[in-house]
Amino acid sequence: MTQSTNLPTSSFRVRLQGVLASPIVRNFILGVILFNAIILGLETSDVVMEAAGGLIVTLDKLCLAVFVVEIAAKLVAHRGRFFRDGWNIFDFVIVGVALIPAAQGLSVLRALRILRLLRVISVAPSLRRVVEGLINALPGMGSVFLLMGLIFYIGAVMATKLFGAAFPQWFGTIGSSAYSLFQIMTLESWSMGIVRPVMEVFPYAWVFFVPFILITTFAVVNLVVGLIVNSMQDAHNAEADERTDHYRDEVLARLEGIESRLKERD
Amino acid sequence: MTQSTNLPTSSFRVRLQGVLASPIVRNFILGVILFNAIILGLETSDVVMEAAGGLIVTLDKLCLAVFVVEIAAKLVAHRGRFFRDGWNIFDFVIVGVALIPAAQGLSVLRALRILRLLRVISVAPSLRRVVEGLINALPGMGSVFLLMGLIFYIGAVMATKLFGAAFPQWFGTIGSSAYSLFQIMTLESWSMGIVRPVMEVFPYAWVFFVPFILITTFAVVNLVVGLIVNSMQDAHNAEADERTDHYRDEVLARLEGIESRLKERD
Amino acid sequence: MTQSTNLPTSSFRVRLQGVLASPIVRNFILGVILFNAIILGLETSDVVMEAAGGLIVTLDKLCLAVFVVEIAAKLVAHRGRFFRDGWNIFDFVIVGVALIPAAQGLSVLRALRILRLLRVISVAPSLRRVVEGLINALPGMGSVFLLMGLIFYIGAVMATKLFGAAFPQWFGTIGSSAYSLFQIMTLESWSMGIVRPVMEVFPYAWVFFVPFILITTFAVVNLVVGLIVNSMQDAHNAEADERTDHYRDEVLARLEGIESRLKERD
Amino acid sequence: MTQSTNLPTSSFRVRLQGVLASPIVRNFILGVILFNAIILGLETSDVVMEAAGGLIVTLDKLCLAVFVVEIAAKLVAHRGRFFRDGWNIFDFVIVGVALIPAAQGLSVLRALRILRLLRVISVAPSLRRVVEGLINALPGMGSVFLLMGLIFYIGAVMATKLFGAAFPQWFGTIGSSAYSLFQIMTLESWSMGIVRPVMEVFPYAWVFFVPFILITTFAVVNLVVGLIVNSMQDAHNAEADERTDHYRDEVLARLEGIESRLKERD
Repeated sequence: MTQSTNLPTSSFRVRLQGVLASPIVRNFILGVILFNAIILGLETSDVVMEAAGGLIVTLDKLCLAVFVVEIAAKLVAHRGRFFRDGWNIFDFVIVGVALIPAAQGLSVLRALRILRLLRVISVAPSLRRVVEGLINALPGMGSVFLLMGLIFYIGAVMATKLFGAAFPQWFGTIGSSAYSLFQIMTLESWSMGIVRPVMEVFPYAWVFFVPFILITTFAVVNLVVGLIVNSMQDAHNAEADERTDHYRDEVLARLEGIESRLKERD
Repeated sequence: MTQSTNLPTSSFRVRLQGVLASPIVRNFILGVILFNAIILGLETSDVVMEAAGGLIVTLDKLCLAVFVVEIAAKLVAHRGRFFRDGWNIFDFVIVGVALIPAAQGLSVLRALRILRLLRVISVAPSLRRVVEGLINALPGMGSVFLLMGLIFYIGAVMATKLFGAAFPQWFGTIGSSAYSLFQIMTLESWSMGIVRPVMEVFPYAWVFFVPFILITTFAVVNLVVGLIVNSMQDAHNAEADERTDHYRDEVLARLEGIESRLKERD
Repeated sequence: MTQSTNLPTSSFRVRLQGVLASPIVRNFILGVILFNAIILGLETSDVVMEAAGGLIVTLDKLCLAVFVVEIAAKLVAHRGRFFRDGWNIFDFVIVGVALIPAAQGLSVLRALRILRLLRVISVAPSLRRVVEGLINALPGMGSVFLLMGLIFYIGAVMATKLFGAAFPQWFGTIGSSAYSLFQIMTLESWSMGIVRPVMEVFPYAWVFFVPFILITTFAVVNLVVGLIVNSMQDAHNAEADERTDHYRDEVLARLEGIESRLKERD
Repeated sequence: MTQSTNLPTSSFRVRLQGVLASPIVRNFILGVILFNAIILGLETSDVVMEAAGGLIVTLDKLCLAVFVVEIAAKLVAHRGRFFRDGWNIFDFVIVGVALIPAAQGLSVLRALRILRLLRVISVAPSLRRVVEGLINALPGMGSVFLLMGLIFYIGAVMATKLFGAAFPQWFGTIGSSAYSLFQIMTLESWSMGIVRPVMEVFPYAWVFFVPFILITTFAVVNLVVGLIVNSMQDAHNAEADERTDHYRDEVLARLEGIESRLKERD
């Protein structure tokens, strides 16, 4: 292989790449990720932390150390090419976040450490394929997302101007209006919780909200329909055609045979 | 082109059409629409309006002026044919609404100005295609919509007669019954909020509401199923058949070749 | 036609059948149905009833008279065969219900009169087709419905035994348990409204409710999937095959031609 | 048959197998299951139990006795092979649970007796097929389920760390967080009931909850899309291909015939 690529890779880096890609190292890392997830889960229990808080914190630091060593080794082995793979960047960011000193009670950063469990996705190929499938489905829906963004911005500005003064808790700013409209789109307490109280002040408020629900629901349904049609075509193209192709090749071969036989005789 | 169409277009109008369709003008208009959307968004913030209210209002008027000039130019360039394109009428109405004097605290008209952002749809081709796709899906669902209308009218009249006297806030008039039934169809607080209180007075009210939910939900599901089947067929027809057509043409050509060869020999 | 069927139909009955099926009579009946629907809608308005209550009641009786005459004429024209068409039975029952004397404040029977509007479905062919499509989709889902029935009966009996004593308002009897479980299946207030209060008494109540939600939702999803697959196949079979059939017929005809030509020469 | 399998089965066991598989015994067992379900339903009614409690309990014991005898007979007839069929194990467990002595007010075990009605599924072939279809659909969704599990574990740990101290009733432990997140995924009271109160303490809580809703909803939609695509392919493969296969066989046969005819002549 070194012969064919002919790169000036030191034999140490080549060997390191092999070690990192070996099943033993992969499974070890997978085990550490799952063990770390359990440790971080136990950290939420007051009883466990009182009994063995020091051990839990030490084990967590140990797991983090393993991840840092693994990523450092990968960086040494692959150098610049490390960052060409999206999953490597994903791992790098997740481990990097954990290294930011979580001083002064920044509980949010401490809570983000559990995101390390997401590394399971980059290590397990079957999960990786599912996530890649989900992400690949997104670009085809770009235009509908853009449209939803437009509808939400227009809806938020209108709701703020119309109902902001009377209902500041729901429609006081564009941000809170957008949140309330998202809640309404999910149909959660839209009527009893929001639109009926609003209609007591503005009796025609339903003229704004009912079409908003119909339009956004219709757009979401179209997103789902698009997803179904795309998946169906991918599946259709991948599979049933093989038998058809075989049959067609045979028909064409036989037809050619008959033609050439007839030609010979002429 | 003037030769082939042979219309008495002054060269000025032809040139104007070219200018209006040029990428520079299109992108400039797109920029003004987005800038105007930000301006109208800032208008909802009390802090911004106190600091720079005059500037915001002036910029909004400037944007409106650009739109008026653009539409006037289009009217001059295309005359009567301007109104043959649905998107032009869409633009005309949206800009026209903004010109109605919003006197005497008609805050609704002021709020409608943000609808100008919808012009992005008519300018950006990808959004235009999505919206046209959504609108084209509607006619095929006409009969189901009509059926839903029937069910809602029947349900609203029945609910008003049965529960209107006891629960005027929900079923007092046909209008409020229809709104309540829409809420029930979306499954929002249908039981805890409405049907359970109603059942305390009319213990058999579920005989009306549960079938209503089942029927309307089933109708909505059928709308979605119809959408999926239509989209699938459009996609199916557009794509995979090309290879099949090529194969079929070849088989038929070869068969004809063999036949004519046999005929020659007779 | 009388010749070929050779039935002892009096010429009067044949002519009556023709008159009843003529577009004028059909459209007249359609008009009366819609007019009646408006009348029954107006009846719900106290203002209208005070101003012109007598007129409204008289017009309603007139519409009913038209329907009775129409159905009587159909019965005379078709005799026993009248009841062979499901839509005729549908019309007969709907009009028949309206003739039951609604004495002693039986407001339910009065409310049922608006169901006459459903006759629009039997008169308008496009609506008829949609409803027939919906009804035809039901038998294929029979097994899943049976399964849902089983799950609901089991769930209702278990919920009544487990939570009936502590929460009689929700799970006091099998009937009220079934209603509550239907509400939970529609996900309306299932947690905040019902399961969280129940869990304060029975902390492990989620072991019953969460699987119930998962199973019933999964069954409903499978109903919808079945509907989609069926519709898709109907559409697929009806359409694209025509071109394929034409192609296949031509291939087989040409192959036969070649064969017979070769046979002749032997 | 005894000849071909050549097993040392006593003729008694062979005859017993025949009797157990006969339609009369099957329908008798089905009748007992349904009768038992009605008995267990009546047990929930206080009125019925006061009037005829003793009879009800006796009839229930009788039904159970029938089931025990049937399963014992099946065990004798099939011996070890009895447990090779999943449905037999299903029956065995359901009847076995009923035999555990429900002493000391273990009302849960008493409530589980209604699960015997599930035996209808193993007896009725059409229900059996539906349930097998539903279960067969599960493995294909394994990866997405695993992913959902990951998301829920990560979400539960994060929610517990971030909001556990301030809202112990919802996010106090990992378990209660997971339950609350399940409620949020079903969109039940997610905003008015949970996220708005949380946002009063942590104004940026929506940064956690809104993406959680979007991600889990998207994953659920993908599960449904996967189900639809699988069902569609199964249906597609099973059906329309038969006619196509027939056509293809005929084309290939005729082509071979033409070829051999031409070969003979050479």
